Order: sequence, then C-alpha cells, then structure tokens
Amino acid sequence: MVNAGDMNGSGNLMDFLDEPFPDVGTYEDFHTIDWLREKSRDTDRHRKITSKSKESIWEFIKSLLDAWSGWVVMLLIGLKAVSLVRVFAPYACGSGIPEIKTILSGFIIRGYLGKWTLLIKTVTLVLVVSSGLSLGKEGPLVHVACCCGNFFSSRFSKYSKNEGKRREVLSAAAAAGVSVAFGAPIGGVLFSLEEVSYYFPLKTLWRSFFAALVAAFTLRSINPFGNSRLVLFYVEYHTPWYMAELFPFILLGVFGGLWGTLFIRCNIAWCRRRKTTRLGKYPVLEVIAVTAITAIIAYPNPYTRRSTSELISELFNDCGALESSQLCDYINDPNMTRPVDDIPDRPAGPGVYTAMWQLALALVFKIVITIFTFGMKIPSGLFIPSMAVGAIAGRMVGIGVEQLAYHHHDWIIFRKWCRPGADCVTPGLYAMVGAAACLGGVTRMTVSLVVIMFELTGGLEYIVPLMAAAVTSKWVADAFGKEGIYEAHIHLNGYPFLDVKDEFTHRTLATDVMRPRRGEAPLSVLTQDSMTVEDVETLIKETDYNGFPVVVSKDSERLIGFAQRRELILAIKNARQRQDGVVSNSIVYFTEDPPELPPNSPHPLKLRRILNLSPFTVTDHTPMETVVDIFRKLGLRQCLVTRSGRLLGIITKKDVLRHMAQMANQDPESIMFN
Amino acid sequence: MVNAGDMNGSGNLMDFLDEPFPDVGTYEDFHTIDWLREKSRDTDRHRKITSKSKESIWEFIKSLLDAWSGWVVMLLIGLKAVSLVRVFAPYACGSGIPEIKTILSGFIIRGYLGKWTLLIKTVTLVLVVSSGLSLGKEGPLVHVACCCGNFFSSRFSKYSKNEGKRREVLSAAAAAGVSVAFGAPIGGVLFSLEEVSYYFPLKTLWRSFFAALVAAFTLRSINPFGNSRLVLFYVEYHTPWYMAELFPFILLGVFGGLWGTLFIRCNIAWCRRRKTTRLGKYPVLEVIAVTAITAIIAYPNPYTRRSTSELISELFNDCGALESSQLCDYINDPNMTRPVDDIPDRPAGPGVYTAMWQLALALVFKIVITIFTFGMKIPSGLFIPSMAVGAIAGRMVGIGVEQLAYHHHDWIIFRKWCRPGADCVTPGLYAMVGAAACLGGVTRMTVSLVVIMFELTGGLEYIVPLMAAAVTSKWVADAFGKEGIYEAHIHLNGYPFLDVKDEFTHRTLATDVMRPRRGEAPLSVLTQDSMTVEDVETLIKETDYNGFPVVVSKDSERLIGFAQRRELILAIKNARQRQDGVVSNSIVYFTEDPPELPPNSPHPLKLRRILNLSPFTVTDHTPMETVVDIFRKLGLRQCLVTRSGRLLGIITKKDVLRHMAQMANQDPESIMFN
Repeated sequence: MVNAGDMNGSGNLMDFLDEPFPDVGTYEDFHTIDWLREKSRDTDRHRKITSKSKESIWEFIKSLLDAWSGWVVMLLIGLKAVSLVRVFAPYACGSGIPEIKTILSGFIIRGYLGKWTLLIKTVTLVLVVSSGLSLGKEGPLVHVACCCGNFFSSRFSKYSKNEGKRREVLSAAAAAGVSVAFGAPIGGVLFSLEEVSYYFPLKTLWRSFFAALVAAFTLRSINPFGNSRLVLFYVEYHTPWYMAELFPFILLGVFGGLWGTLFIRCNIAWCRRRKTTRLGKYPVLEVIAVTAITAIIAYPNPYTRRSTSELISELFNDCGALESSQLCDYINDPNMTRPVDDIPDRPAGPGVYTAMWQLALALVFKIVITIFTFGMKIPSGLFIPSMAVGAIAGRMVGIGVEQLAYHHHDWIIFRKWCRPGADCVTPGLYAMVGAAACLGGVTRMTVSLVVIMFELTGGLEYIVPLMAAAVTSKWVADAFGKEGIYEAHIHLNGYPFLDVKDEFTHRTLATDVMRPRRGEAPLSVLTQDSMTVEDVETLIKETDYNGFPVVVSKDSERLIGFAQRRELILAIKNARQRQDGVVSNSIVYFTEDPPELPPNSPHPLKLRRILNLSPFTVTDHTPMETVVDIFRKLGLRQCLVTRSGRLLGIITKKDVLRHMAQMANQDPESIMFN
Repeated sequence: MVNAGDMNGSGNLMDFLDEPFPDVGTYEDFHTIDWLREKSRDTDRHRKITSKSKESIWEFIKSLLDAWSGWVVMLLIGLKAVSLVRVFAPYACGSGIPEIKTILSGFIIRGYLGKWTLLIKTVTLVLVVSSGLSLGKEGPLVHVACCCGNFFSSRFSKYSKNEGKRREVLSAAAAAGVSVAFGAPIGGVLFSLEEVSYYFPLKTLWRSFFAALVAAFTLRSINPFGNSRLVLFYVEYHTPWYMAELFPFILLGVFGGLWGTLFIRCNIAWCRRRKTTRLGKYPVLEVIAVTAITAIIAYPNPYTRRSTSELISELFNDCGALESSQLCDYINDPNMTRPVDDIPDRPAGPGVYTAMWQLALALVFKIVITIFTFGMKIPSGLFIPSMAVGAIAGRMVGIGVEQLAYHHHDWIIFRKWCRPGADCVTPGLYAMVGAAACLGGVTRMTVSLVVIMFELTGGLEYIVPLMAAAVTSKWVADAFGKEGIYEAHIHLNGYPFLDVKDEFTHRTLATDVMRPRRGEAPLSVLTQDSMTVEDVETLIKETDYNGFPVVVSKDSERLIGFAQRRELILAIKNARQRQDGVVSNSIVYFTEDPPELPPNSPHPLKLRRILNLSPFTVTDHTPMETVVDIFRKLGLRQCLVTRSGRLLGIITKKDVLRHMAQMANQDPESIMFN
C-alpha cells in the first residue's frame, strides 16, 4: 500500500478520505454518549467480521471469538468478582451505585472504573474494615465488579471501542456484584434491571444471568459463609403464618416506608451541609469522629457491639428449645414433653425483657448513626444497616405480638388461629419482614427486594408477607417523595441523569426548551457548500458545542445533517496535513458532488463522510413529554427541532434535564453538572 | 349551553370546532395502535383531572379514585383470576399466549378478550377437562386473566378509552395468570416481563407485582393444592449436589435444547399442514382422533396413565426409606441402621429396572403426542407436558448416574465425592433439572424459568444446576433457530408482531423501505390550504390509508403534519351537518389563519384541530436498523421519511415487518396479515 503522505492525486485523495479518520468516535470526559450511533457502529463492525469470516478459516475463527467475547467477558467478571470477595469477604466496602447508574445512563466519568480506583478502593476497604461502622457492602461490590467489567471489556475491541456495548457489560457486572455480595444471583440480576441499569436489552438480561451463574458457582466452590448453603441468613421456621398476622406485617411496611423517608431526607440534608459548609473540608476528621462516636456508643449494648450481619442473623432466627441466646430466654413449661423443634408460645423471661430495652436503644442508635455514616468519604453500602434497622423493629413487634397472643388467647383476633399451647407466632419472621420493609423504603425496590430476601434467607414460604411489606413500604415512602436514596444522591451530586421513573406531565412544547431562546444569538450552523475551511475553524474556535447542524443555505435553513465537533477538527487537521490543495480559503462541502466554483479557486474539501445524514428531529410543536420519552428510550444526546422542514433549534440532554428541574420548581442551575 | 345545531355565527363555529369530535381516537379492528399518541392523550386526561380536583372536594375525591383505579383493577384481577382457578382448577385449559403477545405489542383483535371468549373458553375447558390429553394450563389461564383484565379495565374510563394504558393492565393480568397457574407469583411477573409483554414500564412491574401479590394471597386462602404450601411440586432433598454432577446437568440442558428445537419444528410443520390442507376442516374429528389415540396408548403404561402433574411430582421426589413407589424399589442393606431420611445409595431392584423401560416408552409417547396436541382447536398450554418430558429424561439419567456411582466407587470421577455407603446422587434432582431444561428449550425463558422452578419446587439450594441447565438449553436451542414456540406461532398465524428480540443487522436504509417505491404512484398528501372539501373526500374514497401527511404545497413538499383518515371523515361529516357555510367547494385549511380567498368563495373549513403537528420523521438516509429500533421502542404506527425537510414517503409498521421478512429470505407476502 502507498503511504498516505505520498498520495497527491485527487482520485486517491478521495479514496483516502473515504477511510475513517483515526480516533473518530470516542467521547470526551463528562460527556454523554449517543446510543443510536454506538449501536449502528457495532452493527457495521459485525457486518465486516461476518463478511471477512468467509475468506479464510483464521478469519472464521476470529469471528467466532468475537461472537463469544461477550460470554468470555462475563465468565471472567464472574470469576474475578468472586475472588475479590474471597480476599475482601469480611471487609465493609463502599457505595458507588449513584455514579454507576449515571455512567450506565450514558455519561462518561473517566477513571471512575479504572484500575487505580479499584486499587485505592481496595486499600481504603482494608482500612475501614475493622472500624465497626454502620456500613453495608453491596455498593462497593457493585463498583468493584464494574471496575473489573470495565477492565476486561477493554481487552476486547468489540467492547473497548463502543461505549454502548461497554455499558451492556457493565450492567451485567453490576448484577454479578450484588450476586456475590449476598450470594443472591437472581436477586442481583433483578437489582441490576430494576435499580441500576438504564438500557437493558433482553440480551443483557441473559448475559447478566450468565455472569450471576458463574459468580454463584464460584461462590459455592469457595464457600465463604462457612456452611454448605449459598444463603447468608438461612432461616427455618416451623410454623406457617396466619392471615391475621398480615396486619402487623403491613404495620412493619409502614414503618419501613417512614424510615426510608426519614433516612433519605436527613442523609441528603446532612450531605448537602457537608458539601456546602466547611465541614466538607475535613473528611478524615469526620470519619475519625464518627468512628469514635460509633465505638463509644455501640460498645455497651450487646446488640450493637457485634457485627451487623451477626445481629441480623440472630434476629432472623427462630428460638429452638436449646437456644442459649438472651432473645430466647422464655419460661419453659416443666411438664412439656414435645419434640425439639415444635415449641409452643411461652411467656417471656427476664432475658427477653432486657433484650427488648437493649434492642430499642440499638434501634435508635442504628437509625441515627447510619444517617451520618452513609455518604462519608469511605466506601459504604446501605443494605446491611437498613436491614438491621428493620430486623430490630420487626423482632420487637414480633415478640410483642407473641406475648400478646400468649397472654390473651381469648381475644377475638387470636381466638381463631392461636389455641393455647400452640406455636403461633414466630418473632424471627417479623424481623425478616421488617428488614425487607426498611430496605424497600430506602431503595424503593419491589420485585428484586423480595427475590433478594428469598435468596438471603431461603424463606420461599413467606412470599406473601414479604410482598405485602414491600408494597406497603414503597407506597408509604413514595407518598413522601418519589426519589430513592440513589436518585437522591445523583441529584445531590448534579449528575446529568434522565431517570426512567420520573414522569413528565407538563404541557410544554419542544419550542419552549430548544436553544436558541428568543433574544439569543442564532444557532451556529454549517452550510452544505458555501463555507471555507477558515469559516469552519472560526466557528469551532468561537463556540464549544459538541456538533453543528448542516443546512442547505443560511436562507433556506433546510436541514441536511449533523457534524460532530471532534470529527470536524480531526478531518480538517488531517486534510491540512495530507491534502496539498486544502488551504484556509478552500470551500468545505457536504454534498455528494463538489459545488461549482470559479476558476482558480483552491481545491475544495469534501466532508460528507463525517456528516451524520440521519440526525434526529422533532417538530417545534412536539410535546416535551414525547421529547423526554424519545431521549430516554433512544438514549439520544441531542435532537434538532424543525418546523415545516426548516431548522429552528436544538435540544440537548442537558437542556431536557434543566427544563425538567425548572418544571419541578427547582433552580435549574442548582442541578448543573460538575 | 347553546345546542350545537343552533349555532350559526362563525365565531361560535370556530369554538365548536375546537371541541374534539365524538368518537375520535379509537381504532379499527386488526389495526395497530400508536403508543406515543395514547401516552400523550393519557397525560392530557390526567392534567384535566388534576386541575379540576382543586375545584371541589368531590372532584378531589374523583381524582383520587382515578389515581387508584389502576390498583383497584389489579386487585380485582387478582381476586377474579383466582376464583376462576378455583372453579376450573383441575381442568386442562388452552394457549392464547401468541395472540396475547400480539395484542400487547399494539395490535387490535376485537372480541379476543371479550366476555363471550371467556365464556366459550370456559365451556370448552369443561369439555376438555377429563380427556387426559397432553396439555398444560398456563396459556389458557393467561388468556382468561387477560379477559378479566380487559373486562375490569373497561369499567374505568382511564383504561377503557386508552389502548396504551389498557395494555399496561393486560401485561399485569398476564403475570397474574401465570402466578395462579403454578402458584408462582414472582415467576409470573418475570414471565410477563421476559416472554409476554412488549411495552413494560417500571410502573407496570410494580402493578404486576401487586396483582401477583393479591393472587398469591387469595390462592393461599383457598389452598387448592391441598397442602399448606404455596408450592405445586414441593421437593426436599437430603444431599447437596456435587461439582462433578454438573456434567450430566449440562447434558440434560443439551437434551432440553434439542427437544425444544424438535418440538417447535415438528409442531409448526404440523400446524402449517393443518392450516393449508383439508385436515384443518375437521377440527372436531382431529380432537376426537388424538384423544382416542392418547387414551389407547397411554393406558397400558402406568407413567402415562396418571395425570401429568402427579407424574412430575413423583419423578421430582426423593426416595425415602418408606417410599412404596416402583421408582424407589431399591435393594436395602439388611444391616443398615441409619436415620430415616439419610439413606445411602443402594443398588436398584427389579422395580427400578421395570420403571426405566416404562419411562423410556412414556418419554417417546409424550414427545410424539405433545407435538400433535399443541395447536389443536382446544385450549392448551405447554409448561406441564414440556416439564414431563424433561422430568422423565432427567430421572432416567439420574438413576443411571446413581447406579454407576454405586457400582463404580473407584472410578476417578466418583472417587472424590462419593464414598461407599454415602448418599451421593439424588435422581429427583436430575428430574427437576431436566424439566427446567426442556421448558427452557421450548419457551427460551431464562431468568423467569429459574424463578418459576424455584417457586414450583421450593428448591432454592439448587440454583446453580438449574441455571446451568437453563443457559445450556437456551444456547443449544438458539443455535438451531432463534424463535421460541410463541414467536413461531405468531409467525405462523401472520400477526404483525415486531419482536424486540429479533436483531436487525442489514445495511438497508429508510429510502429502500418507504412507500411509494420507484415507479409507484406518488404519495397521497393533503396540502395545507389549497384543497377543497370535495378533493379531500375524493382522496379518502380512492385510498384506504389510515392517514395522510399534510404539506405546505405540492411543489414545496415541506411537511407540516399528519391527519388521521378517521378524524378527517368525522370532521367533514360534522362540518357538513352543522356548519352552514361548508359545501363541497369550501377550501380546507390546516394553517392557523384562513387563506386569502377570492370574494364570494364559500366559507372555508378549518381542520387544524385534527392535525398532528408532531408527526414522527426520519431522513431517507436513516439506517433501517435505527428505524426498526425506533418503531420498537416508541411503538410507532407509521413514520414519515424526509430529505432536507421535503417529504419523500412513509413507512408503516407493516412495511417494516415485510422488509424484515424479505431480509430474512422469507416471502414477504407469506407473513401477511389475516
């Protein structure tokens, strides 16, 4: 092949220009990716490989490798994520879910998923590990899994070169992260679907499923929980639940919703204060202070002294006859001669009463300290503390109902199902329901919540109580505010995240949102065949837009396409270096054929190759509701606005977000975009 | 208010025309709905209610009722669907899932979800009930639940008047249907998400979850399976599984995939033959013949004689020491003094060998008869027969592995995990894995399959074997053809269904698909202010398009909007009856202001109210891949094609489907649209 620098003939030049420029099609930091474009680039790549694969056996094998690279990446994520758990299994780690959500919605935060982040997060984890802070581990593990996913996908060109495909891998990695955090593979897949992911095609569902399968499989071989079960808080109750118990279960759901609301409001208020006042300047001091306070207050109470996982495990447990725990200090009937695992309800002994007081104090402590702990500059998750709050409250309610039923067999509400001497009420079940309710109130999960609870406890029989509590908790919490904790932190941090769940129901039109507004300078556009290279360079220098619409002429304003800023710069740079005829005076043209030029004018520069001939357009009368829907579902970065075929303006994703904030009576500048 | 007929002044006339016409916005039979339009209509309705609700307490209560009507409909579906199961619990019922899928994707088949369908289906169910045919019940129950959902949603104007909202209810109803068919609430929700639904916003996920909650709750109170568990085939195994067993599990996955491929190909070939030859004219005779053959062949074999559910239940079961079944006829060691539920592997007795032969015959019989039964003119599901095929094969493999391990302790593959006298292999687990694999091969479910298996059996510990078999089965089956049984039947019946799972990767452009093609008559358009009422009526009479693009003029061809045929007809009819000035010669105008007319010309007719000012457009260079994506995600009915702002043509959903068939080397006319 001829060296590109040697080619002077204009025929060759044209051929050369038909090749894509190097480095075209990557994005800058803190930018938004264009899903449709990434998708069609992947299809092109795929087509090339398929046609090549018929040429030789080697190419065929390469095409097979390419087709399987998705599965190989999943296999590696599953294996790797698990080995990290193996190394850091007992360590509390930290949240990153709001950032992961934002990245998955198409935003670029360079380095957030890099090797160094992984390393530093790991080191801080080691430091945080023995602190006894009120922390969970699902968030950090999701982050770590996504770092791994990012690392492995950079090894396969199919994923490293396409931001859309890369995000499919990351969605599946998030699923694997939750899977290994709790040994809950299906719950992980659903969590990724319901909470974390943005663009989740069915193929990703299967991929996530496979990653979770590998994770679950490897987890089982490693057996980190030290029992032969895949289950973190295995429970086995000996009594079914009764219809009348639904009432306390729903009460626990209400409690969970209230806790979720309280937690989100207080935590966000505290984090905002940290962000805006001098407090935020001393993160290390803050961590030390909170750790010290945690240690001092937690130590005297036996229920806060032990690790939160152990606490939850004990609260979930049913009291067998031989149980030595304080919570199981019931007064046994000396005449009782029943089998070991069928114990009737008994009156509470002094240990249970002591435990109730200690649990009440532990509850208040956990509620307060979790609010201050989540969001500190250390890795931190939320599942375990939330579940602990719910489990404490649930166990207390459960013991209360049990004692009430024991002492008042004859009350109408108990008479039908709780004969004297029967085992009616299982306080551990109440703890489990309470844990689900509180976790649901904070995260607003529903289906994934119930599945995760199943997989954590093995309690498939208790689906109706769990579902009832989950739905109640979500309703109550939603009544006070639609945002879950992750969305709240996304807003607090000002990430440009277009939530699929927010409903936009205002009556505004595209014309109200598009730029330029009335009175602003007209839209910066390129014309298809009347601007010189210098004109284009000036336009690029004077503006910082990501791209420019190309119109037939400034008069007719009929839209023919859209050119990316980055690609324009590269194309002009390349042409100036390699094409002799191109000077500042050269006409730039985007049409098929060069325009008719006066004699002696310099060689024109053809840029049709970089022109996106199918830019997305809506009319100025399109309701913003529809525009928001289109941005969400198609993952657009920008959209042009036309009327009767004439270009009027442009709407970017950030314009949409600003407008939505304005409509929700927020200051649109407050949500912008660090 | 003045009676509309009395209004003659032109000011009043304009006001009158600003009201929507009666009957505007419903669809005709076998038409496709426009999701975006339905959505924005719902928002309008919502806005009206919200603004009204501030006027009085009564309006406020009405607005509350409206907001809750979704939940009320769900509550009623849950209750009702369960009471139908109560009545028809032991009855085999019939599939309707392909039709439900098509309806959910936005197609209209009037009466398919009506009261009479419900009634007739019920009656045929009663007739089919005692036939002993190889049938499942999930399909019919989904259909019945959707009929109920349709019925109840017609009681709430929010749903009865909006085809988009109605489909959200139907998606949730489908979830409730599967939930009650198997007592698998979460599996039902996921089945609806993965297999049945098309447009599944997160809100629908929660609604489905609630419907499934109510269904599970009611099911529990009714207790149709006669045990206190919510679980149809409850299993309890006493041994964990071992890593080496993954190999036979994956083999079962391969078998499931092969069975799925075989079943779909043979069943579709047979159904096509039924459709195209004289065979299809004698549906009653066919049913009688198949029933007779089933009865004659099934009776001599004890494993086909009993009901399929009982068979599956027995195959899933672990052999306890006291089990009397032929499958548990092992030779006991007389010296054995172990506890009752921990029995080591034993050599098979003569009963087991007999059972193996009978199971092999039952397997062949089930495979053949299911192919001929599914698709007959009776209600029929697929889950139970597929699971039976898999359970038989799995149990046989399981017994084989068990005997191999017993007689060859010293083989390398057994030495590590199976000491003599230990309980290593559980044949019932193999049956469960086989059932999952075969169900997966036929339906291509993954996540929902595993969840349904959990909920059917309570076997949460066996997630890895189930997932391994499900993924293998899907891979193997997909290697022979991407279509699951429901998609195959949709294609066979020629429904216009745009599958979310089909990948479209061809390099065609919008210009290749749009009408008019080269050489065809130009596109029928309306102009904004130069056609008379008569011109429009002629156009309507001579064409049968659903709507017409409106352009500035025939010369400029710049697009300003889109007018629906139905609304045009109604508007002109209304105007002719009620507006005195409107005659055949009147100019029809779609602009804001009336055009300048010569003096003495008749009163013009303003139709801007019915003009959709934001029709969806793409450029002629848009890749069809993107167009297909847009049709899928936004649920469009048609899309206009422009170049540089000029209207070139139109692409309808049916054009897209025809094109996709053509690209897949199918005859595009073969898939059209009965």
